[in-house]
Amino acid sequence: MSVKDFIDAEKTELSTEIRQRIMEVVEKNGGHLASNLGVVELTVALHAVFDFAGQDRVFFDVGHQCYAHKLLTGRDDCFDTLRRFGGISGFPDKSEDCRDSFSAGHSSTSLSAALGLCVARDRAGEKNHIIAVIGDGALTGGEAYEALNHIGETKTRLIIILNDNQMSIDKNVGVLTRNLTKLRVSRGYKNFKRGFSGFLRKIPLIGKGLHRFAEGSRNFFRGLFTRDILFEHFNLKYTGVFDGHDIKGLISVLQSAKQMDRPVLIHINTKKGSGNVAAESFPDRFHGVKSGLAPGESAFSSVAGQALCAMAENNSSIAVVTAAMAEGTGMKYFAAKHPDRLYDVGIAEQHAVTFAAGLCEGGLKPYVAIYSTFLQRAYDQIITDVCMNAMPVVFLVDRAGIVGSDGKTHHGVFDVSYFGSIPNMHVLAPADIQALKKCIAFSETFSKPLSIRYGNFYRSELSVEPPENPFLWQTIGNAQSKVAVITYSNLLLHEALTAQERLKEEGIEVQVINACSISPIDTRLLQNLSSEIVVVLEDSVPSGGLAQRVALWSAENGSPFRLVKMTLPENTFVTHGSYEELLKYYSLDADSVCRAVREAL
Amino acid sequence: MSVKDFIDAEKTELSTEIRQRIMEVVEKNGGHLASNLGVVELTVALHAVFDFAGQDRVFFDVGHQCYAHKLLTGRDDCFDTLRRFGGISGFPDKSEDCRDSFSAGHSSTSLSAALGLCVARDRAGEKNHIIAVIGDGALTGGEAYEALNHIGETKTRLIIILNDNQMSIDKNVGVLTRNLTKLRVSRGYKNFKRGFSGFLRKIPLIGKGLHRFAEGSRNFFRGLFTRDILFEHFNLKYTGVFDGHDIKGLISVLQSAKQMDRPVLIHINTKKGSGNVAAESFPDRFHGVKSGLAPGESAFSSVAGQALCAMAENNSSIAVVTAAMAEGTGMKYFAAKHPDRLYDVGIAEQHAVTFAAGLCEGGLKPYVAIYSTFLQRAYDQIITDVCMNAMPVVFLVDRAGIVGSDGKTHHGVFDVSYFGSIPNMHVLAPADIQALKKCIAFSETFSKPLSIRYGNFYRSELSVEPPENPFLWQTIGNAQSKVAVITYSNLLLHEALTAQERLKEEGIEVQVINACSISPIDTRLLQNLSSEIVVVLEDSVPSGGLAQRVALWSAENGSPFRLVKMTLPENTFVTHGSYEELLKYYSLDADSVCRAVREAL
Repeated sequence: MSVKDFIDAEKTELSTEIRQRIMEVVEKNGGHLASNLGVVELTVALHAVFDFAGQDRVFFDVGHQCYAHKLLTGRDDCFDTLRRFGGISGFPDKSEDCRDSFSAGHSSTSLSAALGLCVARDRAGEKNHIIAVIGDGALTGGEAYEALNHIGETKTRLIIILNDNQMSIDKNVGVLTRNLTKLRVSRGYKNFKRGFSGFLRKIPLIGKGLHRFAEGSRNFFRGLFTRDILFEHFNLKYTGVFDGHDIKGLISVLQSAKQMDRPVLIHINTKKGSGNVAAESFPDRFHGVKSGLAPGESAFSSVAGQALCAMAENNSSIAVVTAAMAEGTGMKYFAAKHPDRLYDVGIAEQHAVTFAAGLCEGGLKPYVAIYSTFLQRAYDQIITDVCMNAMPVVFLVDRAGIVGSDGKTHHGVFDVSYFGSIPNMHVLAPADIQALKKCIAFSETFSKPLSIRYGNFYRSELSVEPPENPFLWQTIGNAQSKVAVITYSNLLLHEALTAQERLKEEGIEVQVINACSISPIDTRLLQNLSSEIVVVLEDSVPSGGLAQRVALWSAENGSPFRLVKMTLPENTFVTHGSYEELLKYYSLDADSVCRAVREAL
Repeated sequence: MSVKDFIDAEKTELSTEIRQRIMEVVEKNGGHLASNLGVVELTVALHAVFDFAGQDRVFFDVGHQCYAHKLLTGRDDCFDTLRRFGGISGFPDKSEDCRDSFSAGHSSTSLSAALGLCVARDRAGEKNHIIAVIGDGALTGGEAYEALNHIGETKTRLIIILNDNQMSIDKNVGVLTRNLTKLRVSRGYKNFKRGFSGFLRKIPLIGKGLHRFAEGSRNFFRGLFTRDILFEHFNLKYTGVFDGHDIKGLISVLQSAKQMDRPVLIHINTKKGSGNVAAESFPDRFHGVKSGLAPGESAFSSVAGQALCAMAENNSSIAVVTAAMAEGTGMKYFAAKHPDRLYDVGIAEQHAVTFAAGLCEGGLKPYVAIYSTFLQRAYDQIITDVCMNAMPVVFLVDRAGIVGSDGKTHHGVFDVSYFGSIPNMHVLAPADIQALKKCIAFSETFSKPLSIRYGNFYRSELSVEPPENPFLWQTIGNAQSKVAVITYSNLLLHEALTAQERLKEEGIEVQVINACSISPIDTRLLQNLSSEIVVVLEDSVPSGGLAQRVALWSAENGSPFRLVKMTLPENTFVTHGSYEELLKYYSLDADSVCRAVREAL
C-alpha cells in the first residue's frame, strides 16, 4: 500500500503521525527539526503524486528536510536509529537507499544535479518525473543561479519546488515586502485552485525579499526569483504562492505540474517547524537540535565570538564575515554588540571570502567565520583572493575535524589538507579555550593569512599553558620518552593523554606533543626530538595531513624516527555517530593509540 | 601630465597609440589581444575621470583586459617584458604596482572584492571612487550573483561597468535578442547624452542574451541583468547601452556616475579585438594568443578532444561538460561531431561538476573538461557531488602543472594536492600522447571517479610504451640503479631523462620512474625498489603532493631509501615565464636534478 491509496483524511492523519514521529526521534537523537516539520505535507503530497518506488526522483537541496521522505520510503522501522552510529543518516544518502537520489548536505546543488538527471533522461527517451525541492535560503548560493541559467536553455521537464520558509520580516525591503504581504493575504490559497493556466501573466508581482530570522542577510535575489517576469526568462513556468501545508491543494498543483513539458517552478509557503510550538517560535534555534545541549552552542564557538567581540571594543577595524552561520559560529555575540561590523552574506561562501579580502584591502581586519566543511566551497577564493593577494584575513574554521551525528557531508576533515596546500596560509589548531583566546589575540596583529581551526566537541581544558609563540609545538610529559604522539585538537589530545596515562601504568613512557600549529610545522622541535617512534594522530584525510608533512620532513632529514600514521582511512567518507564511536571505529581513540604504541615497540 | 590634461583629440590619439603598442607587444610575447583591445577607450576614459594615482581604484574582473591600464600607470617602459620571465604580468598584480588594486585571474570576483573595499571606505568616511569592470561572460559565474545580492543591500557608492562584448548572436534567445538589437540600433549613442536622470524607468527592455562566440553557452542571466527592472531591485542605478569606444561619451557618463551616492551599473558595448582586423573577426581565437603557436591548441588537448570524439561514435552515453572552454580543452572536435552531447555551461565550474554528477546518475558517462586552475572553484562539488556519490565522472584536467606566461593565477599546481585529498578519486598523469589515449580508452569503463591530468607543454613522445595497467608506474633505465627519480608529466619526465643521460656520462646510473598514477601510488613498485636514493620531482605545491605521499609510505615501511624532494617552494605563487625559465628558476630542470643526485651521493 502506498500514499496514493490513502483517502484525503488518511493523508492528513499520516502527516500528523509523521510529524509526531519526527519530533519524538529528534528529541532523542537530535537533528534538523524545524526544516523537517516544515515539509511534511509537501512530502506526503509528492509521494501521493509521484512514483518514487519506480522511476520518479526527488532531490532535496541541502538535504536537511528529508526525514518525511525517509519515513515514506520504508525507513520507519529504523528511524529510531536516525543520526546514530550504524543507523540511518540525517541527510539523503544514496548508499542507504536508492530512493535518496543524491547524497547531499551542502547547499544550492539540487538544481544542477536534477538538471543533469533530466538531460540524461531526455536522451534516453524516458518519461519519468524529476523534482528538486529548494529553499529560499539555498537560492542565495551562486551555484543555484548557474543552474537556473542552464535550465533556461534546456527546456527540459523539471519540477522545481521553491520552499519558501517565510522565516523573517525585514522592514528595509520596501516595495517587495509590502506587495508580498498583500499577495499572501489576498491570493494565498485562492491561487492554486486556478491551476497553472491563465494566471501566470496576470500576477504583477509575487515578490518576496525575506530573510532568515536572526541572520541579517537580505536577499534581493529571493525577491527577484519570485517574480513571474523573471521566471519567464528562465523558460520556467512559474506558479504560486501556495499553502505548503495543504495536502489536497499541493496534490492538485503537483498533478498539473506533471503534465507540463517544460521546467516549472512551484512557489510554496511553509512554516519552518510547523506543528511544534517551540520550533515554530524560534525556527533558527531549532534548525539543528543537538540532544542534551543548548542548541547551536559549542564551547569553542562561544569563546571565539565573545573574544572577538571584546577585542573589537578597542579595535574599530575588526569586522566579521559569515555565511548564514552567525549563530552556529558563536558570532551572535559579536552581532549583538557590533551589528554594523557583522556581515552575513547568506549562503554564499565564495563571495564571503573575496568580500573579506576586499575589506582587508580597505584597511579592515576581517574574520571569516564559516564551518570547515562549507569553506571547501571557497577554496579557489582563499587561494587567489586572500593568499595570492597576501591579505591578513583570519578564518575562524569552526566544526573542524569529526563533527558527530551530522555525518559524511559535515565532517571538517579536509581543511588541514586544503589549507596546507595554499602558499602564505598559516594554520593554528588551538587545543583548548585558553589556547583559542591566545590565538585570537595573536591574530589581531598578524600580517598574513591565518586560519584558526577548532571542533565542536570540547571535553576540558588541558593541564598545560598554551605556548607563547603559537607556531611552536608543546611537549606534555617527558621529552626523553622513547615514544612521541603528535596530535592536535581538544578531542584527540585528550585521547593521546589518556593513552599516555594508561601506557604509563604498563611502564611505557610516552610524550604527547600538541601540534597547535599545522602550517608551519615546528621543525625545530622535530629536529631536537629524541624519540625513536613517532605516532601522528589526526582526524584528517591522510593526503596533505600532518602525518604526511612530518613524514616528508623526516625523510628529508635522515629519517631520525620511525613514523606510525593514525589518520582517517584513505578512501572513506566518515560516517555519523558520537565522537566516541567514530574515534573508536576509525581507530583514533586512546585504546588504538595504546595498541599502536605497543605494536611499534 | 596625466590623461586628464589631454584634449579630446589627444585622447583619441592616445588610444590609437595604446592599441598599437598592445598589438605590437602581444604579437611578440603572446597574451590576451581581443579583450585588451576592446577596453582601450574605456580605460582612457576611466583615467581621464578618476584619480588612480590617488585614492580611486579599479577592479578588472578576470584581469585579462588590464594592458591599457598598465600602460597608463607608468608601465610603458617595461611593457615589452609583458608575460616574460622577470617582466610584468599579463594580469593585474598588486605586488607589481599598487594601482593594480587586486591580483586577479579567475572570473567573477571583481564585484565581491570591490564591494569589500567600498564598505571599508565608507566605514573610514573616505570619499574616493571604486570601479569594477566586469564582462558579460563573467556574469555567468555564481559568485558575481552572490555579490550583486549583497551590493543590493549596502547602498554603497560603487560604479560597475558591464563590458558587453557582443561576442555572439544566437537565434534561440528570442525576444531578448530581438529587443536588444532594436535597442542597440535605436538608442546606442543617443542614450548617454541624456545622462542618468529621467530615462531609467522609460526603457522597457535593454536585454541581451548573447553568448561567447563558439562556446555555445546561452546565458539568460546576462539577458536578465540588462533589464532595468532587475537592477532596480538590486538597488543599482542602471544606465546604458553606451558605445564603449567613444571616449568623449564615456567620460561624460563616468562623470555623471561620480556624482551618484549609490551603486551604479553602466552598460557599455565594446567590440572585442577592436581595431585589429583578425582579432575582430575571430575574437575567441585571439582570446589568448600564444607566441609562435596556433592559438588555443595544445597537443594533449587536441588529442583528448579527438580521442573522446572517436570513442563517442560507438558509445552514445559519452557526454562532455565544459565551462566556456570548449576551444581551449580541445573539445571543439567533440562539439563539431557531437554537438548535442557537448554541454558548455558558461563560466560556471561549480554547476558544471554537479551537473555532470547528475548526468552520471542518469546513466551517461560525462567527461568534464576544465583547466586545472579553474577546477579549484569546484573543489567542494568534486568532493560531495561526485566522489561522495561515487559517480564515475571523468575529469579531463587540462593545463596541469606549470603553464608558462599566464603566470600566478593560471598554473595548475594545486590539483595533485586537492584531488589527492578526496576519497574515491583516482588521478592519472599520462606522460605522452600514447599514454593519454590509453587513459581515455581505460576511462570508458572505469567505474569510479577519475581525473586525467596533463599540461599545455608537449615536447615529444617517450621512448617507452605506456603501461597496460594505468595505475602501475613504469621504470625507464636500470631498475638496479642506486638512484631513482620519480616524476610525472611530459615536461618533467623529459627533464628527468635528460638528467639520466647526463649523469650516465658522469658514470652515475639513475633509473627514471614514470609515476603515471598519482592516486593511488604504486606501492608494489616502491616495495621492490632497490635504489638507496629516491628523488621525487614535481611541479606541484609540496603539501599533498607526490613527494609527501612517497615519504609517508617510506616512513611507514622502515624508510628503505633516502628521499630528496624537488617540488615547488612552500610559500610561493609561481611567477610567469617560459617553462624552461620557470623550471630552472624553481630548480626543477635537468641541471637541478643532476645537482641534487650528485649531492645526495
